[in-house]
Amino acid sequence: MRRKEFAVQDQQDVEQFLQEMSYGYLATSGEDGWPHLTPVNFVYLNGHIYFHGSRRGSKMTEIAASGKASFAVAKEYAIIPSYFTDPRQACPATSYFKSVHIRGEAEPTEDLTEKAEVLGALMEKLQPEGGYSPITPEDPAYRGELKGVSVVRLTIHELTAKFKFGQNLTEERRESIIHDLSERGRPDDVETAELMRKYCPFHQA
Amino acid sequence: MRRKEFAVQDQQDVEQFLQEMSYGYLATSGEDGWPHLTPVNFVYLNGHIYFHGSRRGSKMTEIAASGKASFAVAKEYAIIPSYFTDPRQACPATSYFKSVHIRGEAEPTEDLTEKAEVLGALMEKLQPEGGYSPITPEDPAYRGELKGVSVVRLTIHELTAKFKFGQNLTEERRESIIHDLSERGRPDDVETAELMRKYCPFHQA
Repeated sequence: MRRKEFAVQDQQDVEQFLQEMSYGYLATSGEDGWPHLTPVNFVYLNGHIYFHGSRRGSKMTEIAASGKASFAVAKEYAIIPSYFTDPRQACPATSYFKSVHIRGEAEPTEDLTEKAEVLGALMEKLQPEGGYSPITPEDPAYRGELKGVSVVRLTIHELTAKFKFGQNLTEERRESIIHDLSERGRPDDVETAELMRKYCPFHQA
Repeated sequence: MRRKEFAVQDQQDVEQFLQEMSYGYLATSGEDGWPHLTPVNFVYLNGHIYFHGSRRGSKMTEIAASGKASFAVAKEYAIIPSYFTDPRQACPATSYFKSVHIRGEAEPTEDLTEKAEVLGALMEKLQPEGGYSPITPEDPAYRGELKGVSVVRLTIHELTAKFKFGQNLTEERRESIIHDLSERGRPDDVETAELMRKYCPFHQA
């Protein structure tokens, strides 16, 4: 995870991944010295991460106590079994994944227009087929709800993305794993093989 | 997430979920005041959570600085669109999920026998089809690797599980959503409908 060849430079790839993933993990610092972790549905909008929740929840209490938050989204595409690489040793077993790590300041917003925009974007992301009235602060049926819900803006200080798809492999080894994945045929294996080609150092150069 | 009807009492259900999920998120406290988040493959073994990594990684440095760690595993089964419940308002949109939250003390183990047992269990979980030599400290081909890798034991202080499958719904509303899910037919929808029946308060009573 530390090698620089895993880092993704393409902002568009990162944003597309954030759009595809419905939830991520928010970490805040509890007053008891333990970090607290909450899975949250989220939307990436205007350069920020947004999520919503109940005003009364512990997540919101901690954000109020300390805005310092980390946020991560990861998807495992494939477990690469050791025997793709070595007939005897278990050590080469690994997994290919995309992950995005963010650290920033989390702060609730009270602006009803911003809240409505965020919740509208969240609906568009998670319920793209529609089937609801647009969310606006002017709509009396939404106004009370908008005031009641807590919407948190995570202002991004640092974003790093790691898309690990065997970038450190020799070309011969890469082709061998792509072949083995195609033969195995689990749900994400074909996409994983395509991502190995897309993110291999030669194609990126 | 705070309502007590979401809490899962059945230890067996929790352990099965931990066995099904290949990775979770580890949160540690960084010295800079920010919590740090890392997705990790893990195994639940002998009542502990175990994961492994490189001795040189930032995850291990932070564990050495403060053993206080949180760990979470979540799976979203279904987005429940607002129109399953309300023809106009977006507010009822929600998601059904299983999540397990753990807090505990993370500590590297140097015991080669424990390390071998953990890595063996991790292989069995992630590569159940086999295809490698069993990992033992006596095997000279593994001994050096076992010494080199860092294996961390997370001793569980607190474990809470939340399986949210509409437990707060009336029976009529539940049946209506089960019907709508069956009609929609996305990959996890049938299983979600089964879980709604399994975890509804009447069946649990």
